Amino acid sequence: MTWLESAVDSPYGIHHLPYGVFSTTDNPARRLGVRVGDQVLDLKLVVTSGTCANCETCTALSSSTLNDFMALGPEVWSKVRTQLQDALTDETLAEPMSRMLTPVADVTTHLPFTPADYVDFYSSEHHATNLGRLFRPDGDALMPNWKHLPVGYHGRSGSLVPSGTDIVRPQGQRRTPDGEIVFGASARLDIEAEVGFVVGVGSQLGTRVATGDFTDHVFGVTLVNDWSARDIQNWEYQPLGPFLGKSFATSIATWVTPLDALAASRVPAPEQDPAVLPYLVEPDRYAYDLTLSVEWNGTKVSSPPFAGVYWTPAQQLAHMTVNGASLRTGDFFASGTVSGPEKDQRGSFLELSWSGAEPVKLDDGSTRDFLEDGDTVTISATAPGPRGTTIGLGEVTGTIRPAN
Amino acid sequence: MTWLESAVDSPYGIHHLPYGVFSTTDNPARRLGVRVGDQVLDLKLVVTSGTCANCETCTALSSSTLNDFMALGPEVWSKVRTQLQDALTDETLAEPMSRMLTPVADVTTHLPFTPADYVDFYSSEHHATNLGRLFRPDGDALMPNWKHLPVGYHGRSGSLVPSGTDIVRPQGQRRTPDGEIVFGASARLDIEAEVGFVVGVGSQLGTRVATGDFTDHVFGVTLVNDWSARDIQNWEYQPLGPFLGKSFATSIATWVTPLDALAASRVPAPEQDPAVLPYLVEPDRYAYDLTLSVEWNGTKVSSPPFAGVYWTPAQQLAHMTVNGASLRTGDFFASGTVSGPEKDQRGSFLELSWSGAEPVKLDDGSTRDFLEDGDTVTISATAPGPRGTTIGLGEVTGTIRPAN
Repeated sequence: MTWLESAVDSPYGIHHLPYGVFSTTDNPARRLGVRVGDQVLDLKLVVTSGTCANCETCTALSSSTLNDFMALGPEVWSKVRTQLQDALTDETLAEPMSRMLTPVADVTTHLPFTPADYVDFYSSEHHATNLGRLFRPDGDALMPNWKHLPVGYHGRSGSLVPSGTDIVRPQGQRRTPDGEIVFGASARLDIEAEVGFVVGVGSQLGTRVATGDFTDHVFGVTLVNDWSARDIQNWEYQPLGPFLGKSFATSIATWVTPLDALAASRVPAPEQDPAVLPYLVEPDRYAYDLTLSVEWNGTKVSSPPFAGVYWTPAQQLAHMTVNGASLRTGDFFASGTVSGPEKDQRGSFLELSWSGAEPVKLDDGSTRDFLEDGDTVTISATAPGPRGTTIGLGEVTGTIRPAN
Repeated sequence: MTWLESAVDSPYGIHHLPYGVFSTTDNPARRLGVRVGDQVLDLKLVVTSGTCANCETCTALSSSTLNDFMALGPEVWSKVRTQLQDALTDETLAEPMSRMLTPVADVTTHLPFTPADYVDFYSSEHHATNLGRLFRPDGDALMPNWKHLPVGYHGRSGSLVPSGTDIVRPQGQRRTPDGEIVFGASARLDIEAEVGFVVGVGSQLGTRVATGDFTDHVFGVTLVNDWSARDIQNWEYQPLGPFLGKSFATSIATWVTPLDALAASRVPAPEQDPAVLPYLVEPDRYAYDLTLSVEWNGTKVSSPPFAGVYWTPAQQLAHMTVNGASLRTGDFFASGTVSGPEKDQRGSFLELSWSGAEPVKLDDGSTRDFLEDGDTVTISATAPGPRGTTIGLGEVTGTIRPAN
């Protein structure tokens, strides 16, 4: 039992301990922190308090970004996690460690890591089927390759922004239904509720990472809102894929849940038919049982179930490197929109409003198809923790500002 | 006239002065250099020799990557360039500066900058038309959007490698002509001869860069070989674009030619019809008159003309940011394959061999459609310099190694 009262029975209890980068009004320097209960534990203070010798781990924990710590690998990650859990349950440390805590309400959080490459997958069968029906009503909903490989593409890592960043409505080209090419602010601004994975331990160019080595490379999980301008995307995306329809901003949650914290949330992943090629076979195939929640101006409009996603993150990692592409610390890859089989499990507004044909009702009585200026979207998630506990993933939120 | 004999009448004369990062056997530390004649001038030695006061520019020139210098902007770039030209023509400096030179044959060059995001365009009309005919023989060669916007996508910046790096043949999925899904080494490994532009001065998220501000942001030019596995690409690329067919390696030349050096190579760019949207209109539309050369195992097989490319780099930059995407120092964007109207001006082997139907003859009597293990490809380019001089862009070369 922890000595920190607010961490007892909390989705941010000592079974969770997500990492982030924070600053305070008093001390604007960015430093690593761990969220526990309603507090943030300052890891730099933990290191400099003298309980830690001058080692590589201490240096990494004194950094202004998670990258150095993430690069140290799973043994160090587990060791530090255990040490933190021990300290937070050691009553004799309650008094000195309390001085290293700041209420989460009083901190500013930042991008938790410096992103290297960003890859976005397309791994929910329900989402891909819905989009196929909407974009290609006369063809097969799923492309012929979809069940053979986790389709993905590179996004813009430079426009990854931390939760809370305002999103300026993008401008661009679109083609009107009568074929005119016009320029202006996107009229079909959408969200994509996704789950992202960040790489800690890199790999060499020309080698590949096996599905079974997933936890040797991936540090943790964070929620993603991959804002999407559907009208820009629809006009530009043939034949090289989405570009400006996505690259104006991708928001990520600022607390990274370590994979270790999600050990109790492993559940069987969907069976795959047809059988996948050997490099995509998993020695121990599992999904993470996260249930997402999408709130639109405070109204909960969807609960996408991550466990039902067809391609697992281990398969995504193996696929991404099977051609010899290297991994770097800070590489980030996201699931693509998570949608379940039910209407209230769809992870984009394009799907929820069926491209505007079935507007979404909000609690204030208004209706929506796509995002209006001033709208706020917040994505959160819960997962089962050990011994009946619950884990609450850091939320990702953003508010739409008018086009410049 | 320069006091350095090898720089007189050289494509690396003082009218050129490309920047790079090099090391030597004696001193393995990476440092900035300028290539002049058959020598490399060590910029760190220039700085520490005391002729330079301790300023931001000196710090940047003492770095191990070009990023810090590139971030300083066009006024500083021009000033340093002029100072180097003055020093290289000042006879009184010949003796002390000669001690800062190393023969280019004795240095190892590295990636000249730390890449941020990498974007690859598709801006040669002849290339896009050829690929359309090959990939979609029953449809229009150009997609409806092609003449309205510079089509592009994000590539993997983590697999940008310096010229000279061996390229391991990638493995992956492909679909055989009779519809079977198989795994193995790519059997259709190709090149793409391209011209790349590196961003020095970044921009804020939510703002855009006008076509007329191109030279305020872009530092210089370097040749690119965007290695492509056509069989992997062909199976994976619908609907989100190329991914593993490209992400195993992209080679770039290690000498970056500053835009200032190419002032005399500006020529009119192709006229555009239909008219482009206002944000793509250029106050001063021009192309750079680079003529590329592609050598396959020593046989020159193509001379792609860059001046004929439909979309200019200034239009690419404006398009890339029109949605509010930010720029970072080290952002790199490439033209896409440069192909001219003639057969011996095609910038990929897919086009040169017309997908294998018209094999390419090499000087040793052998023929090729795609790359074999052990093959070496070298791309170089020349451009007109001032007063009848010639500029030789740093070459990009690579040799294919067997799949692991």
